[in-house]
Amino acid sequence: MKPLGLNELRARQLGLLTHDEAVAFIRSDSDVSKSEGLSPHGRIKLQCNGATVYASLYQVTSDLIDHNEIGLSEYAWTKLGLTGPQPVTVSSAPPLQSMTHVRAKMFGEALSTEPAAEIVRDIVAGRFSDIQLSSFVAACASPVLTAAETIAMTKAMVETGKRLVWPAGKIYDKHCIGGLPGNRTTPIVVAIVTCFGLTMPKTSSRAITSPAGTADTMETLTNVAMDMAAMRRVVETTGGCFVWGDSVGFSPADTSVIRIERALNLDVDGLLVASVLSKKIAAGATHVVIDMPVGPTAKMRNLASAAHLSDLFRQVAGAFDLEVRTIITDGRQPVGRGIGPALEAEDILSVLDTQPHELSDLAEKSCVLAGALLEMAGICAEGAGADLAGTALRDGRARRKFEEICTAQGGFKTPPVAQFSRPIRAVRSGRVISMNNRMIARVAKLAGAPDDASAGVRLAVRLGDRVKQGDTLFTLVSGTRGKIAYAMNYVAESPFIVEIS
Amino acid sequence: MKPLGLNELRARQLGLLTHDEAVAFIRSDSDVSKSEGLSPHGRIKLQCNGATVYASLYQVTSDLIDHNEIGLSEYAWTKLGLTGPQPVTVSSAPPLQSMTHVRAKMFGEALSTEPAAEIVRDIVAGRFSDIQLSSFVAACASPVLTAAETIAMTKAMVETGKRLVWPAGKIYDKHCIGGLPGNRTTPIVVAIVTCFGLTMPKTSSRAITSPAGTADTMETLTNVAMDMAAMRRVVETTGGCFVWGDSVGFSPADTSVIRIERALNLDVDGLLVASVLSKKIAAGATHVVIDMPVGPTAKMRNLASAAHLSDLFRQVAGAFDLEVRTIITDGRQPVGRGIGPALEAEDILSVLDTQPHELSDLAEKSCVLAGALLEMAGICAEGAGADLAGTALRDGRARRKFEEICTAQGGFKTPPVAQFSRPIRAVRSGRVISMNNRMIARVAKLAGAPDDASAGVRLAVRLGDRVKQGDTLFTLVSGTRGKIAYAMNYVAESPFIVEIS
Repeated sequence: MKPLGLNELRARQLGLLTHDEAVAFIRSDSDVSKSEGLSPHGRIKLQCNGATVYASLYQVTSDLIDHNEIGLSEYAWTKLGLTGPQPVTVSSAPPLQSMTHVRAKMFGEALSTEPAAEIVRDIVAGRFSDIQLSSFVAACASPVLTAAETIAMTKAMVETGKRLVWPAGKIYDKHCIGGLPGNRTTPIVVAIVTCFGLTMPKTSSRAITSPAGTADTMETLTNVAMDMAAMRRVVETTGGCFVWGDSVGFSPADTSVIRIERALNLDVDGLLVASVLSKKIAAGATHVVIDMPVGPTAKMRNLASAAHLSDLFRQVAGAFDLEVRTIITDGRQPVGRGIGPALEAEDILSVLDTQPHELSDLAEKSCVLAGALLEMAGICAEGAGADLAGTALRDGRARRKFEEICTAQGGFKTPPVAQFSRPIRAVRSGRVISMNNRMIARVAKLAGAPDDASAGVRLAVRLGDRVKQGDTLFTLVSGTRGKIAYAMNYVAESPFIVEIS
Repeated sequence: MKPLGLNELRARQLGLLTHDEAVAFIRSDSDVSKSEGLSPHGRIKLQCNGATVYASLYQVTSDLIDHNEIGLSEYAWTKLGLTGPQPVTVSSAPPLQSMTHVRAKMFGEALSTEPAAEIVRDIVAGRFSDIQLSSFVAACASPVLTAAETIAMTKAMVETGKRLVWPAGKIYDKHCIGGLPGNRTTPIVVAIVTCFGLTMPKTSSRAITSPAGTADTMETLTNVAMDMAAMRRVVETTGGCFVWGDSVGFSPADTSVIRIERALNLDVDGLLVASVLSKKIAAGATHVVIDMPVGPTAKMRNLASAAHLSDLFRQVAGAFDLEVRTIITDGRQPVGRGIGPALEAEDILSVLDTQPHELSDLAEKSCVLAGALLEMAGICAEGAGADLAGTALRDGRARRKFEEICTAQGGFKTPPVAQFSRPIRAVRSGRVISMNNRMIARVAKLAGAPDDASAGVRLAVRLGDRVKQGDTLFTLVSGTRGKIAYAMNYVAESPFIVEIS
């Protein structure tokens, strides 16, 4: 092993999951702690293999860590490109200059383009601690980001990431602001609009806190992990794609900011708009439709806040020559019947196979969103889009297009089917008066989704349905018996997942 | 060992220093992680021995932690009253209700008494994560806390801690807003004003980030760790005391808030005022003088901000029938010659032994502060206090009173003297035009202060002094040769600690 130099410690992988915050552990009585004057929970700068990482420091007084070691979280380990006990150079992190702009924003100064860029660059470089990031998010809530400030943030977020340029002049995209389980319209929308010649190179994410992301669902049907060259070939031949886009590197500041907003249970409209639009702009989109579900347990709770957000989307998009249409949708209950990767994939296939009675909500909603894109493209008159989209479902064109894209991506797969299931029955007769999106998502996760792609929840009822005592309300589905039990425990103590009058 | 029940894990002490944030480590694939649906860096609730602790969770994928174990930081370990591998009950922390008030404050609602109380109670209970605390501090900066809001915070901070009542009707106290090394006026002020019959039951803190707190300095001269009964006896017989007050438990929310402000490099006037006054009110003070040093490397950088802070102190104090006098002092350089516990103790003894020429700044400043208290007490006319205070120094009364208090506290000790020292000399001739308080504090800490009570810096020059090349500017002092070397390394690369024109 290479001997340690001054201010060097030997890297040790701790297997610690800390999201995108780098965390390091050093003995409080190590020479480096003393010579650098490090303090508990201070910020340190780590250098190795030409990479630099800023980390939050925990000092250790026990034998958990040796005197010449530095314990590293997985994020820090990966960022430093470590493969073994290599020497890491440790020093106190210099003061974070862009915090000056955060403080100025708190004290009422408008966040202009260059300060926003400095902040976002430092966030992307990992220079912000979670404590500092939280103060930045709070500063964006108060005084609340104006349209001009949101434009500055959007620009900064685009510029810190990768950016795509497509040969087609017009690139179509869609986005859902989230919070609704089973709302898996994206693959259907792509299949429909590409039938009409639109280009829609869709990249999607995996689940962060939900039971399934579009990438998780599509992975049960085809290969979604593709590099840029492969993705371009698929789009060239089919007009669309269903690709896992997290690794593409659009708007990298986004992940950290969203994580802090979630911890604070704070939605800052300006940050949401900057996050969504920066990713769309980076992906090369020119026309975007945005699905905004509104409901008591959705992300948007009422129409007034949806209208405000919608306005901000339009103002900011305008500054980037991006055409945006926001569509307020029903967020009072999940969309479709399945919650979980494979269960949602089955819903998608059912819609494409035109079984309108069972799946009217998912089919209809997909047609509304696809229709908006067709109208924006001038393929049909305003108001005629949803009907036109429906024709592509009914005549099987969308189904064939879907298979064509899957084949181009490496082949069509059949989603896995779970081995275990358990129905949850109504304890009394009556009408279904509410469905709690958050609780339903939690149940699906306890059943194993998304890691177990076959797991989740299959809903048997919808709002307004009349049920008799003993009727199935929903079914727990899982690849392991133990997880059915975990989910059951939660269901047993949560009477209001599906509420009956 | 007691077998583990449902949702129980075996406690393991990790020896992790995390200030007052509880941190826990659990295997991501443990049954508890799965059944509780825990996510990386989520918040969990720990219960053991009748105590409840809220902790930030790090999930571990390696063998660092066993499947049935929970690794705990020192703070969590102590708060749970653990002594060994006892079972700890683990669950997801419920949402923090008082964050509703934090968000409301961000969105422009005034922070009124009951919401402030709920927030402060939750901070004291450790329910706030660092991320949430940071958003609260940011919310107090924007919109900036008004006098009314500061009063609400002060009230909440008083009510969550212990509170003292003294038989004497009037209780005198002093406070320095900090940032100035060597500014050890407190023991001298206590010795002077108690000569005139004032009651001043002074509790002081140990160093947090500075090279010495008053408690560290006084510990080199007498016993400072006393319980309330012993402290009362000393005050009854002598009128004053020099006691380490951190463990008394005044205003316990304070520590967490100050730590976050430091991490953000953000001074929120309202939080500073609430912090200082809540502790004084809890300690039973009725008359307080506040030392506000102003200088480029002090906490207050200019007179305008000092004036604003001074106003806020007076408005808030008025709401609690507390008489406050703020005194703006020279913060351009350290006070006295010694920086570090024993070195500052020597300065104090020199002042009490009336060696006015060498230590005129510390003696004069102590007289100004003591004089203000004498004036507030009506012992002398306005403007005559400093002179009157000086008489007690010159005629030896203050020295005798100081020894009387030390004797009542358990005896007078001689401060330790360091074995190693090294002079730092002027590299050129000229006039001393600036002294950097922060860098001087850093050097003293690198030399070993405050853990090594004998260590620190002894200044040989003051602002405006003419020096010749090779003259000693200051001397590094330490009990260990290695720490002299650490401090020297820093001095060698920091040319502007003492700047010569």
